[in-house]
Amino acid sequence: MVELTNRLRKLVASLDDARVRREEGLFVAEGTKCVLDTLRHFEVRYLFVTTAWLERRHGELKGMEPIVVKRADMERMSHLSTPPEVIAVYAMPRLDISELAPAGKLVLALDRVQDPGNLGTIIRIADWFGIRDIVCSPDTVDLYNPKVVQATMGAISRVKVYYTPLAEWLHGCGLPVYGTFLDGDDIYGASLSPAGVIVMGNEGKGISGDVAREVTCRLTIPPYPAGVATSESLNVATATAVTVSEFRRRQL
Amino acid sequence: MVELTNRLRKLVASLDDARVRREEGLFVAEGTKCVLDTLRHFEVRYLFVTTAWLERRHGELKGMEPIVVKRADMERMSHLSTPPEVIAVYAMPRLDISELAPAGKLVLALDRVQDPGNLGTIIRIADWFGIRDIVCSPDTVDLYNPKVVQATMGAISRVKVYYTPLAEWLHGCGLPVYGTFLDGDDIYGASLSPAGVIVMGNEGKGISGDVAREVTCRLTIPPYPAGVATSESLNVATATAVTVSEFRRRQL
Repeated sequence: MVELTNRLRKLVASLDDARVRREEGLFVAEGTKCVLDTLRHFEVRYLFVTTAWLERRHGELKGMEPIVVKRADMERMSHLSTPPEVIAVYAMPRLDISELAPAGKLVLALDRVQDPGNLGTIIRIADWFGIRDIVCSPDTVDLYNPKVVQATMGAISRVKVYYTPLAEWLHGCGLPVYGTFLDGDDIYGASLSPAGVIVMGNEGKGISGDVAREVTCRLTIPPYPAGVATSESLNVATATAVTVSEFRRRQL
Repeated sequence: MVELTNRLRKLVASLDDARVRREEGLFVAEGTKCVLDTLRHFEVRYLFVTTAWLERRHGELKGMEPIVVKRADMERMSHLSTPPEVIAVYAMPRLDISELAPAGKLVLALDRVQDPGNLGTIIRIADWFGIRDIVCSPDTVDLYNPKVVQATMGAISRVKVYYTPLAEWLHGCGLPVYGTFLDGDDIYGASLSPAGVIVMGNEGKGISGDVAREVTCRLTIPPYPAGVATSESLNVATATAVTVSEFRRRQL
């Protein structure tokens, strides 16, 4: 039976560091909902639980061997402001972009999205609207950042997220490439194909030049009423939701 | 000329407490973008700046008398993880729901939305889509929470947010009342009027019973493909964006 050593406690606590995650090939999920949603989808390395949690939930572990720890240990290992009653440490799956066959699909592409909450929310949006693949530029925030994992609310187990040089991949993907800009065509009136890539850009700077050159159709979510001075832009997760919703609406 | 006293520094730091805000009638905006977007729209009580900020931005203050403070003071007063170079303290405007004439308008109503980031994002969405009024249940997160102010990205100066018992107000508002539920009519196919109230519910629990009774048209954002098991729900800000976008699309 595995025990909680000082070394292990420190390892879990340090998994908010991308370098440590890469070196160890591990990432964490915290809290009942997040853990139970992901437990069957990733390879479990460690499962830390409090006695109280184990009493309530042992039926859901189906033979998995948890490590029972004190609340104080949870506090030391957790990346949340309120420490959870359960923490899972998973082996990080290695996804290879060459396994993605985008033909006939709607795919999301993210160019340098920086905020963990935004990436997590975008994965949740993709999940809701049946998008199974997200292709990210290498400098997009890391999927396995604990804040991203948390914000996906379990959707991380149903959506595949790849990292690859984006302009190059778009160039060869064989699909129409849509991008959202402040000066594109009104999305509500534009022709949208059922298969294609939708590119969303960085929070402050939008889509970078080399990626923008691969965009074949520039779209805009028009403010209402048209032309009235208002917020400079929508948040990137908000814009993703409106854009993907409009693509799917055409298919229903 | 006003100077930074210990008392004043403590007052500003304590404005993340709703009770202190109510008692003092004050709230804060932090950071260049947030302050410059709001400076003309609220009554300024104090404006704290660093020397470096003042040198770069004095042209934008148009005669306002700032209090120059050290970075260490900014750190003590700020509610952000990275202290800003400018903090504004404003008088809290008193909005009276009786001043809202909803006839002919699209209005948002929020029932117990709890997360400050969600409220801020929803205000930004309202601003983009030309919704000028949001009516909140009294137990919705406080508009003047520093995290809400921050997340609005300046939109707080263009959207009016009222707090009032929601079911009662909806009962007398004289408009069709739309609500989003998991079992409503497909929003893309539903009949949507240009004027009406759109009710969004609590993050975990949705719309409460007494508010739901005032809803005249139940809407759903359908997952894609229909009926496939997926995330349990969209985040409330995401759902607001998709819903409001669909109302405005019909009007363009």
